[in-house]
Amino acid sequence: MSGRRRYVILADGEFADRSAKTAHGVIAYGNDDVVAVIDATHAGKRVRDVVPTLNSDAPIVAGFDAALPLAPTALLVGVAPPGGALPRAWRETIAAALEAGLEVVSGLHQILGEDAQFAQAAARGGGTIRDVRLPPEVPLFSGEAYGVEARVVLLVGTDCAVGKMTAALELTRSALIHGENARFVATGQTGIMIAGSGIAIDRVIADFATGAAERLVVEHAPGADVLFVEGQGGINNPAYAPVTLALLFGAAPDALVLVHRPTRTAVDGLNTPLLSYRTAIRTYEALCAGVKPALVAGIALNTAGLDDATAREEIERARIETGLPADDVVRFGPDELYAAMAPAFARKRAPLAQPALRR
Amino acid sequence: MSGRRRYVILADGEFADRSAKTAHGVIAYGNDDVVAVIDATHAGKRVRDVVPTLNSDAPIVAGFDAALPLAPTALLVGVAPPGGALPRAWRETIAAALEAGLEVVSGLHQILGEDAQFAQAAARGGGTIRDVRLPPEVPLFSGEAYGVEARVVLLVGTDCAVGKMTAALELTRSALIHGENARFVATGQTGIMIAGSGIAIDRVIADFATGAAERLVVEHAPGADVLFVEGQGGINNPAYAPVTLALLFGAAPDALVLVHRPTRTAVDGLNTPLLSYRTAIRTYEALCAGVKPALVAGIALNTAGLDDATAREEIERARIETGLPADDVVRFGPDELYAAMAPAFARKRAPLAQPALRR
Repeated sequence: MSGRRRYVILADGEFADRSAKTAHGVIAYGNDDVVAVIDATHAGKRVRDVVPTLNSDAPIVAGFDAALPLAPTALLVGVAPPGGALPRAWRETIAAALEAGLEVVSGLHQILGEDAQFAQAAARGGGTIRDVRLPPEVPLFSGEAYGVEARVVLLVGTDCAVGKMTAALELTRSALIHGENARFVATGQTGIMIAGSGIAIDRVIADFATGAAERLVVEHAPGADVLFVEGQGGINNPAYAPVTLALLFGAAPDALVLVHRPTRTAVDGLNTPLLSYRTAIRTYEALCAGVKPALVAGIALNTAGLDDATAREEIERARIETGLPADDVVRFGPDELYAAMAPAFARKRAPLAQPALRR
Repeated sequence: MSGRRRYVILADGEFADRSAKTAHGVIAYGNDDVVAVIDATHAGKRVRDVVPTLNSDAPIVAGFDAALPLAPTALLVGVAPPGGALPRAWRETIAAALEAGLEVVSGLHQILGEDAQFAQAAARGGGTIRDVRLPPEVPLFSGEAYGVEARVVLLVGTDCAVGKMTAALELTRSALIHGENARFVATGQTGIMIAGSGIAIDRVIADFATGAAERLVVEHAPGADVLFVEGQGGINNPAYAPVTLALLFGAAPDALVLVHRPTRTAVDGLNTPLLSYRTAIRTYEALCAGVKPALVAGIALNTAGLDDATAREEIERARIETGLPADDVVRFGPDELYAAMAPAFARKRAPLAQPALRR
């Protein structure tokens, strides 16, 4: 990566939808500039008009050609569809960007760098491809993460796509303000695009997923006081729970923060009811208790879509049902929740250890 | 696969060790013939002399050349080391087998089919490579496994390498004798070599691991009364627990069988104590309770290395501590334990379903 990118973000037909969460995350938290978003269904508007929570006036354009005068240096594939395959209709835009000499940044499972058509376009135009989801080779979990001095806080959720990455970013920001040398650790494609480093744990071969999470903690810990590790999935979301567990054991957290979106009642895409606060907390804590004990320090609610009064009711309900601090770190800022949880983040915990063998 | 193979098994220096569990499993339960085992440290002996539990008189030889007169048709890489890399010293033997026109069957993470030296040797000699751990492309978990009519029994363990595959094979055998159309479903490399089909779940990209487990159940269920699904890892073994969970949710079991090896007290390779029977049962059942309820029907103990009296004591302790049927299905045969658990295997269970939305 050479300097700050000037991104055009590809989210055609989807910029207003949850599937564009990669686009939204990079606009909200990224360090690169966003010069335009491609979505023909909203062409002529600005980012803020379509997604009011995003603080950006970047124009929305109908196609790649309309973005070229804005001198973009990179094209970001701005969606994260389940399964991670590239929408067919987007191939042409990606090829055009490569022919125009841009860097194409993608977080899809489908590896663009392995595509013959894209390789040819890149060769012709001088463009490059960065597949952020492609993981490095990592060793098996070894327990090395147990030895880091930094305290590790892992965000866990009642489901996928409820706001774990956002909560981790906001809490990192607040911890920095409070004088802690805090670092955000990215474990998914959008987080990696924002942080500029990380590993997409869901793309790692299952046997090595815990090892990948451990590697991230070991590499980010030196010099840090506290790491906020982005969580993935949810412990009763069958599709993604193995990734959730890889982080729970591989990151070896000292404390957990539970993220919940009150408007979500069933597991994403399935008919499985979400766990209650108490069952979710008990489940995460019970799993940690068998390896390295860690408790839930508080609840980060994502009350997007609710009015202020209802949001406050939901936050109050979370406090009453769990006895823990609770807040929406986006709607009301992260500082109050951070301060309430800080004592729980102060303690470094040890893994369980086997006493002398009994036989 | 064309007919019955005549295997020479490569386990040089390791045939007596646990790391040769692939070799042992294929000798004990496979449908192919084993004409020789390569292990220079035991050359001149027979299989049974080195591993008394194996019912085979196949000779142990010092190297590949000594096995050639026995007309092998295939070389089996007989080890499953942590991390799955090929021992360097074995490259020559594998190349020699390929040059001699043999099929090389490997369950390593390291894909032999991608190795240039082996490709050249195969091209020269007419040999072929079968990497059983290389998974097919599978979709994300969809819930399709919830719809199969066959009852699904999943073997779960207090750790990896305690005998889950063996218990599944023995219980399948007993169920067949009891008149059930029972099928063993392989989820790891040795199981696949034995069954001739399956997917090594630990080699699947983490996001798709649950989907791979689901695929196996969906494909093996038609026409079967009951599936015995090989388990992997253990729920508090950090390295392998994500794979354990992928099976727990992806196979969508109706009942569980817990496998434990009393001589194991700490998680394999780590200092983490094993969970007690009760904690292990509670943990597995609690995870299932949030997705599709399933209870542990009984305990399969692996008492290898204990004398008969101690084995009986351990079985009795398991019964007393859990209130469940318990036995060693190898030492004492599977029929008594199968019969005791059969009522628990008779019931098909439904996944949790979300009631009508409340908001």
